[in-house]
Amino acid sequence: MRTKLNYGLVGGGLDAFIGTVHRIGADFDRIAKLTAGCFSSREEKNRACREFYELDESRVYSSYEEMAEKESRREDGIDFVTIAAPNKIHYKVAKTFLEHGIHVYCEKPLCFEVAEAEELKKIAEEKGLLFGVNYSYSGNNMVKEARELILSGHIGEVIDVNAEYLQEWLIDDIGAGDQTMNKLSVWRKDPGVAGISNCVGDIGTHIENTVAYMTGLKVKRVAAKLDYFGQPLDLNANILVEFDNGAHGVFCSSQVCVGHMNGLVVRIFGTKGAIEWQQENPNILYVTLKGQATQIYNRGMAYVSARSAELNRIPSGHPEGLFAAFANMYKVWTGAVLKKVNGEELSGYDYDFPSIDAGIEGVKFVHACVESSQKDATWVEL
Amino acid sequence: MRTKLNYGLVGGGLDAFIGTVHRIGADFDRIAKLTAGCFSSREEKNRACREFYELDESRVYSSYEEMAEKESRREDGIDFVTIAAPNKIHYKVAKTFLEHGIHVYCEKPLCFEVAEAEELKKIAEEKGLLFGVNYSYSGNNMVKEARELILSGHIGEVIDVNAEYLQEWLIDDIGAGDQTMNKLSVWRKDPGVAGISNCVGDIGTHIENTVAYMTGLKVKRVAAKLDYFGQPLDLNANILVEFDNGAHGVFCSSQVCVGHMNGLVVRIFGTKGAIEWQQENPNILYVTLKGQATQIYNRGMAYVSARSAELNRIPSGHPEGLFAAFANMYKVWTGAVLKKVNGEELSGYDYDFPSIDAGIEGVKFVHACVESSQKDATWVEL
Amino acid sequence: MRTKLNYGLVGGGLDAFIGTVHRIGADFDRIAKLTAGCFSSREEKNRACREFYELDESRVYSSYEEMAEKESRREDGIDFVTIAAPNKIHYKVAKTFLEHGIHVYCEKPLCFEVAEAEELKKIAEEKGLLFGVNYSYSGNNMVKEARELILSGHIGEVIDVNAEYLQEWLIDDIGAGDQTMNKLSVWRKDPGVAGISNCVGDIGTHIENTVAYMTGLKVKRVAAKLDYFGQPLDLNANILVEFDNGAHGVFCSSQVCVGHMNGLVVRIFGTKGAIEWQQENPNILYVTLKGQATQIYNRGMAYVSARSAELNRIPSGHPEGLFAAFANMYKVWTGAVLKKVNGEELSGYDYDFPSIDAGIEGVKFVHACVESSQKDATWVEL
Amino acid sequence: MRTKLNYGLVGGGLDAFIGTVHRIGADFDRIAKLTAGCFSSREEKNRACREFYELDESRVYSSYEEMAEKESRREDGIDFVTIAAPNKIHYKVAKTFLEHGIHVYCEKPLCFEVAEAEELKKIAEEKGLLFGVNYSYSGNNMVKEARELILSGHIGEVIDVNAEYLQEWLIDDIGAGDQTMNKLSVWRKDPGVAGISNCVGDIGTHIENTVAYMTGLKVKRVAAKLDYFGQPLDLNANILVEFDNGAHGVFCSSQVCVGHMNGLVVRIFGTKGAIEWQQENPNILYVTLKGQATQIYNRGMAYVSARSAELNRIPSGHPEGLFAAFANMYKVWTGAVLKKVNGEELSGYDYDFPSIDAGIEGVKFVHACVESSQKDATWVEL
Repeated sequence: MRTKLNYGLVGGGLDAFIGTVHRIGADFDRIAKLTAGCFSSREEKNRACREFYELDESRVYSSYEEMAEKESRREDGIDFVTIAAPNKIHYKVAKTFLEHGIHVYCEKPLCFEVAEAEELKKIAEEKGLLFGVNYSYSGNNMVKEARELILSGHIGEVIDVNAEYLQEWLIDDIGAGDQTMNKLSVWRKDPGVAGISNCVGDIGTHIENTVAYMTGLKVKRVAAKLDYFGQPLDLNANILVEFDNGAHGVFCSSQVCVGHMNGLVVRIFGTKGAIEWQQENPNILYVTLKGQATQIYNRGMAYVSARSAELNRIPSGHPEGLFAAFANMYKVWTGAVLKKVNGEELSGYDYDFPSIDAGIEGVKFVHACVESSQKDATWVEL
Repeated sequence: MRTKLNYGLVGGGLDAFIGTVHRIGADFDRIAKLTAGCFSSREEKNRACREFYELDESRVYSSYEEMAEKESRREDGIDFVTIAAPNKIHYKVAKTFLEHGIHVYCEKPLCFEVAEAEELKKIAEEKGLLFGVNYSYSGNNMVKEARELILSGHIGEVIDVNAEYLQEWLIDDIGAGDQTMNKLSVWRKDPGVAGISNCVGDIGTHIENTVAYMTGLKVKRVAAKLDYFGQPLDLNANILVEFDNGAHGVFCSSQVCVGHMNGLVVRIFGTKGAIEWQQENPNILYVTLKGQATQIYNRGMAYVSARSAELNRIPSGHPEGLFAAFANMYKVWTGAVLKKVNGEELSGYDYDFPSIDAGIEGVKFVHACVESSQKDATWVEL
Repeated sequence: MRTKLNYGLVGGGLDAFIGTVHRIGADFDRIAKLTAGCFSSREEKNRACREFYELDESRVYSSYEEMAEKESRREDGIDFVTIAAPNKIHYKVAKTFLEHGIHVYCEKPLCFEVAEAEELKKIAEEKGLLFGVNYSYSGNNMVKEARELILSGHIGEVIDVNAEYLQEWLIDDIGAGDQTMNKLSVWRKDPGVAGISNCVGDIGTHIENTVAYMTGLKVKRVAAKLDYFGQPLDLNANILVEFDNGAHGVFCSSQVCVGHMNGLVVRIFGTKGAIEWQQENPNILYVTLKGQATQIYNRGMAYVSARSAELNRIPSGHPEGLFAAFANMYKVWTGAVLKKVNGEELSGYDYDFPSIDAGIEGVKFVHACVESSQKDATWVEL
Repeated sequence: MRTKLNYGLVGGGLDAFIGTVHRIGADFDRIAKLTAGCFSSREEKNRACREFYELDESRVYSSYEEMAEKESRREDGIDFVTIAAPNKIHYKVAKTFLEHGIHVYCEKPLCFEVAEAEELKKIAEEKGLLFGVNYSYSGNNMVKEARELILSGHIGEVIDVNAEYLQEWLIDDIGAGDQTMNKLSVWRKDPGVAGISNCVGDIGTHIENTVAYMTGLKVKRVAAKLDYFGQPLDLNANILVEFDNGAHGVFCSSQVCVGHMNGLVVRIFGTKGAIEWQQENPNILYVTLKGQATQIYNRGMAYVSARSAELNRIPSGHPEGLFAAFANMYKVWTGAVLKKVNGEELSGYDYDFPSIDAGIEGVKFVHACVESSQKDATWVEL
């Protein structure tokens, strides 16, 4: 009976913020150990990672194809791969590892095309492999609490959703023409690298996923207006949304809203109450029942759900931040993989990680928004 | 040279919240004195008002037509009339007083039809009369500060607007069918009384006006989705907006968002900065310049604009609320009327009250939203 | 049966912020009408007030002694006097009006010496007159709600109090020596005018009163450290407090805390719960019961107490500010005076205005703090 | 040249929240690796730790004396020990490891007696060993930013301090007599285990340290009132403080303030400005300069100090919580130890960890508070 796992990383070199967060998140519970990687196409970067992560020289690869092949043949090969490489190769990398029988945990966006996404799903199903997509905000304890409350009917039927993800970091790109002001953003504005959308693809999808995760609702159609401000890809988006239960709402996604750093805010309104969660102050949940005063739920208190309590790490009032959210993602994901490698049946909360279906919804959402905007905000179904 | 004015009130009986707020607001600066009224069609209500307001018996009228006629013939007749009667008679009452040469200060919405609104404007212009529309939130000191900052270019060109007005008080109407749960809301849901829209008409127009007032921008077109939840008029609205400068944004207006009392929140994003104002905490303004930390402006501090300082009533940190906002509305309005009756030229801030043009925009906005929603959120121009 | 009252104002000229707030507050409910005044010792200021307030020429007096005498002899003389004159003459003015049989509503601080305060109480009792002291923050609707909750046992027995009143406006006085930087503050630092304390006298007393009003507790003794920063009177104070039920707490009062405008914040902790109120956002109350999430009470909602509901003026979410607080003060005070002049018995909430006993506590509190600080923060009983 | 370190853990078993946080914090930057431990006196707990941490069997010890001795003799022995054992044995454990030439990183409180603390300091100095005390809140990025701002004179000279650490978790102990309601708190109320103070010792010391760290000021004397509510050790404390620069302030420390989870809030007021930091929302700093609007500093923005920027881990708006604070503690501490083991000179920020002097101040502070309270809040010097 295995109690620990080995995993590999594709992408996520030391200078990439996201790779480090993955590694730290996975380390929290010491279930998955980083034992192999193809961090970069550059030799020196790979070497730096090998030293930092104290990896065996033979398990640092210069190509992900080689990595998939060799690891799949080792007795002690990786149990799953985390893909934190550039978005444009997600599909190819994921496919390669699946084909070698390795479970895949992929950064969002899953890939660029719906057909690709569905192909990946098909392969995973055929091979009996797990496929997770790292919508990391769903790892927050109080996002899970919101989900528990909403799915249990605490706020009644959802009648309106108001959600946003506002950032300011690309404000200098407005009117910058060819001259990109923000070096970090270069690839985000290159359709060859970022896909058909920058802002909606990068952060709008987090809105879509967080709302879907909290409520269990699916976006049925969107009427979107994307603003490009002279750039090849969108920097700002205002989106009317219709859900599969008939409720409406708005999603606002922006990288040019000055004063907002990483402002994912989700407000769900129901017939019996409402819930609000703010990513920048994530240990709090605002819960209001009809006719009652708004309550400020704190993570870790006695009144939270069993699920939320179970995933609690430190006493209430000690902030759990992004690293803890990643740790929760890995806790659930590795729990599922462990059961799989041990031949156990998965059920219930074992599946409480964003599946490939969530990834597919994200790809569809981006396509629908871009198409709708091209048609001057005509409704487009997902 | 007159320094004080007399005014009359149509509607606004003692049990009507809005009449009292008008009277108290007008009393703050002791420029306008309530000297005549047609408060109600019911004799006893009129009498109660007469006593409470200590009015001359001969100047409490049972019909507004009589009031307009008699007051226009008195030497000491009212200088202007405040119309706080039901929305459906705004047009008729306003027209009557204009035709008798009396300046009009009308509650919003101005009226139901654009043609009516434009007719009122034409009459006022022909008669050389002032016509104000009481979009009372524009009376808030920090709304004026926001306007000063934005019009002076402090936050650059406006590129996105995110504004909402959320209430919860009609939540029980959802699914209530014929049985109206909330007695106060009966007339609001009767198209014969409330016009073609409830939620957008009542509070959506405040979003439209506050944004227009703060930014100087006009709404060019809307793509709106109104939710009726089985009622004859709308209870919830999500609206994509395009402004005359090309910027986009969303307006969300609701009376069924549990946890929100009177949540008018306006966020204006520009190329150089951003501004946020919240009606429920109105003495504060959040101002962020690109690359700098968000600043919390307090009403009455040394750093505010000359205009904001001029209208300041009490030291910073002592909250000015809705009554003070009404008082500011009346201060500007009565200042303008005083100049008019003294034969002086108006200029600059003399016009800093919502004009009939603002009222017309409101009527157009409501019609455009309703029409757009009927066409499944197709764009409709104002 | 009288339904309206006449009152006079001593002090409170047009350039004095506090006089205007009194007049506006009294006007809200149209029960008391300003009919006489001795606004200033300067003829021209008196004349300006007469015109602004539209007073009878014969009822604007150049001395308060003359006013007390003449008004007491008029059939339509004032029913009560509001004293908004400089603190140093409160005692003399109050005594004069009491001796002429006129009810007194006095700004805080009541006077400088405990003996004076008790003399005023004795006269009022002998004459059967009402004496109110305008601790205006107790007029806030949610302060009254806090009182209702605490007195009804909602948070159990009080075990700790943490209250502060922080301002920044005298920061420039630090190190300014003789040269006063802030012109407005000149008199506040003159012991001949302001008494033995500036900061504790001006705002520390508001802490003491608001806590006493909310909880029903009396301060038993204090250990205070006042900071003078080279000025003749205190600018900053940190005070350990012991209440008559044995609970402890701190009061912090300052005019040199940068970033704070008028920050009166009161937090009451009990064995079963806690309550927090912030003057700068006064329509909100934070209420927490042991083991439950903090609740954000809104003024005017269905769940507030009958008392709070009764004094509610406008719907929840429409901010009531300082003017409304003053209006509430006058509503209760004039209600009591009306009963008195009509020969009715007072009971229950008729007494819900700060009495002379509250004023006496304030004087004692200031003396105890100053004495304690002179003795290096030794405990001094009130 | 070493680039990585080995460390051991005394205490901090798997069921102890604090041991896990230490391990995770140390893992963030992969500089120090846990290689030895004496986690518990119970064999089975030790074994569980060995498995979880994947330690060599020979390096899990049943006594800390044995661990100190054996590790000191190994070539690959631990470079430092982290002491997370019960407070009452801190002194003995620390002394033992120092005597074996091993650097010590000790949880706070350092120990119970000032003499013990000074003895430890003497030994460390004689042996040339580093000694850190884990006041973990000083690891927060924005606490460091506050320190940078204050020490650089940004807010002028400190004139007042208002700081608190409020919790609610022992509220049920009030009036519980012998019957302890809260099982977790049993040892905290046993003077034999917790020392002379519970509340001041556990969390009051965090106030003292955070203020000292932010400002560079030392507490000179205290006048404290501790409340016991029938328990052997204090549950609540209100403390007047005088600093070595003559400034005053208050520290409020409580475990019975309902509604507060882990509310460490520090407000520093200076002659030119003020700074506020709240532990529960730690990525924010409120900075106000005289005459200007309050600014909301966000961790990671371009305007923060070089020091703050250097320690930044993830982009602004992605919350760094308690785990990241611990990681920062370890980053600085292990940086210092690395230099030491490599024979390099330490300077500047190398010393940016809480030293044994900070630990000694904490012990003195607790003793002074308890003594002062026993003398009815008489001033006691540290």
